[in-house]
Amino acid sequence: DTASALAAGCPVVFKAHNAHPGTSELVGHAITKAITDHGLHPGVFSLIYGPGTSIGQALVADPNIKAVGFTGSQAAGTALTRTAANRPEPIPVYAEMSSLNPVIVFEGALTGPTANIDALAQQYVAAVTGSSGQLCTSPGLLFAPTGDAGDKFAAAVNHAITTCAGQTMLTESIAGSWHTGTEALGSADGVTVLGQGADGQTHNAPAPAIYATQVKDFLTNEILHQEIFGAASLVIRYTTTSDLLDAITRLEGQLTATLHLTNHDYPTAAPLIPALEQKAGRIIVNGWPTGVEVGHAMVHGGPYPATSDTRTTSVGTLAINRFLRPVAYQNLPTELLPTPLHNTNPWHLNRLINGQPT
Amino acid sequence: DTASALAAGCPVVFKAHNAHPGTSELVGHAITKAITDHGLHPGVFSLIYGPGTSIGQALVADPNIKAVGFTGSQAAGTALTRTAANRPEPIPVYAEMSSLNPVIVFEGALTGPTANIDALAQQYVAAVTGSSGQLCTSPGLLFAPTGDAGDKFAAAVNHAITTCAGQTMLTESIAGSWHTGTEALGSADGVTVLGQGADGQTHNAPAPAIYATQVKDFLTNEILHQEIFGAASLVIRYTTTSDLLDAITRLEGQLTATLHLTNHDYPTAAPLIPALEQKAGRIIVNGWPTGVEVGHAMVHGGPYPATSDTRTTSVGTLAINRFLRPVAYQNLPTELLPTPLHNTNPWHLNRLINGQPT
Repeated sequence: DTASALAAGCPVVFKAHNAHPGTSELVGHAITKAITDHGLHPGVFSLIYGPGTSIGQALVADPNIKAVGFTGSQAAGTALTRTAANRPEPIPVYAEMSSLNPVIVFEGALTGPTANIDALAQQYVAAVTGSSGQLCTSPGLLFAPTGDAGDKFAAAVNHAITTCAGQTMLTESIAGSWHTGTEALGSADGVTVLGQGADGQTHNAPAPAIYATQVKDFLTNEILHQEIFGAASLVIRYTTTSDLLDAITRLEGQLTATLHLTNHDYPTAAPLIPALEQKAGRIIVNGWPTGVEVGHAMVHGGPYPATSDTRTTSVGTLAINRFLRPVAYQNLPTELLPTPLHNTNPWHLNRLINGQPT
Repeated sequence: DTASALAAGCPVVFKAHNAHPGTSELVGHAITKAITDHGLHPGVFSLIYGPGTSIGQALVADPNIKAVGFTGSQAAGTALTRTAANRPEPIPVYAEMSSLNPVIVFEGALTGPTANIDALAQQYVAAVTGSSGQLCTSPGLLFAPTGDAGDKFAAAVNHAITTCAGQTMLTESIAGSWHTGTEALGSADGVTVLGQGADGQTHNAPAPAIYATQVKDFLTNEILHQEIFGAASLVIRYTTTSDLLDAITRLEGQLTATLHLTNHDYPTAAPLIPALEQKAGRIIVNGWPTGVEVGHAMVHGGPYPATSDTRTTSVGTLAINRFLRPVAYQNLPTELLPTPLHNTNPWHLNRLINGQPT
């Protein structure tokens, strides 16, 4: 958001996360140096420190602020969104709040040799435990088929997670939420522990945990839909395509949805795609959702509560649209037109002229 | 909004305006016929009747509604926006609420023969009184220079408005608001009546009125910034470019801003353009703001309170963006991609491929 706001010509006030003040300071210095090197006004970037509840809310309420970007909890994002909507002049809030990033494993992906099944399980566990699971696209749900192939996959997941140790989480509060969330999930009806690693050697490094359940329990219990930020995930065993459609329909908005399949699974997977389009901003085949790229086709956003604004992305070239506003110039002489709109196209922009891209 | 929502593939529920139920019924029938003729599901368009305060609010709060378009008063639009922001799942509201549509007349536009000045004054009065001034782009403010040329223009405006008669307004309530607004404006410090027409022969057809004041009063009195929906306008006499810049800075968001000038005025007008870009969605030279066109370059929108969402337009091909959401398809085989995304480009869409328009 900072990069796209600056690219759109907006000054940015950045509130550092209290959990990593040093990193914020380093990044802030790098941005300030770039601003100086390019001869921009030093006021285009400010870095400030303080508690989000007071300083964040005060910034969002300030009449000089015209748009807000945020990454964090659903409670904090919702509070900022409400503040922005209730200003005398309402402004947009781009809050990235929660996502379970469902992964669906089809039969075909489990039909190869055991080594392939083991590799898939290891990739899943790596995606769940990387950065201690503290990534917005960490897979919190995985749908695996019932039957032999699914059982083999579950056993491989158990094996892979058992050898993992906890990594330090960002703050004590985040680790506390992880404990509360996993306790609620682990004690929910129909949920069992599929496998758990070891506690880490450091402070706030709980043992990564993977749970298991059936589609029928997922459909009826709200607790199984709560994001647990950190190394925890839930494997849901399904039997039919209808199970998957029911589960997708029941999902809230997501940043990503992922399918693992071979060409034998295409007929089974095809009817799920239109349902997933309604629920996620990015649909991935035979990959893992962690990782984004700054490119033209990137969407890092999705329906509420993944983000507060479904129409945009926070990563990719389209992200600049968060901070732009269209203006029509009707009958203006060249002398009064902004330079980039001159007929000579001096900035070499891609343009639409009478509906044709030029 | 109805056209662009349907074009985006969204079903539409349309609440008819109570002041013109017959027109709504005719338009509704035409849309329903088009839907039948094209074999679309009949549920894609519904027309309902009832009071906005209850039915409108209930629609905006309904979890099946995912976006809202609205044209009307700032109070009603703000109420809908608040309701939408406070839903469990917040949704966007595209409310078009108020606009004074300032017009700036420069010296050069008044230097020709008297007939030219008279014609300009007549065009202004026609824009103010057309449809009894009940157009969102009706010019509620006109900046005219002090001195002889400006005096001649003011006299011509007085002459033109004096010969006008009132036309019937849409409802008794709208006519009532017009009376309240013009009484407040007419009794404000430093505001005089520049000219007034005759009452119309029909019910609720008040005499069109044009008022006059100075920039200093416009800068300090909030009453001079209130939209009066109907045939009323305020001529503000200015002396310097600095007067104009001060006044533009003080303006709220507008749908349009208009300049009347000749090439002699370009140096004076140039510094105002960047200021007007911050305040209006459409900047017009040597025309009048009433009238929109469905085209690629149209913007019918602007900063708050002209509209509740500054990033969009309600008219023009870009209006479809109000009802679209981006989705990225990462590594999907052709068999699972939506048809329009196939490499053969079967829908002949304009596409961006690796950043190049194609």
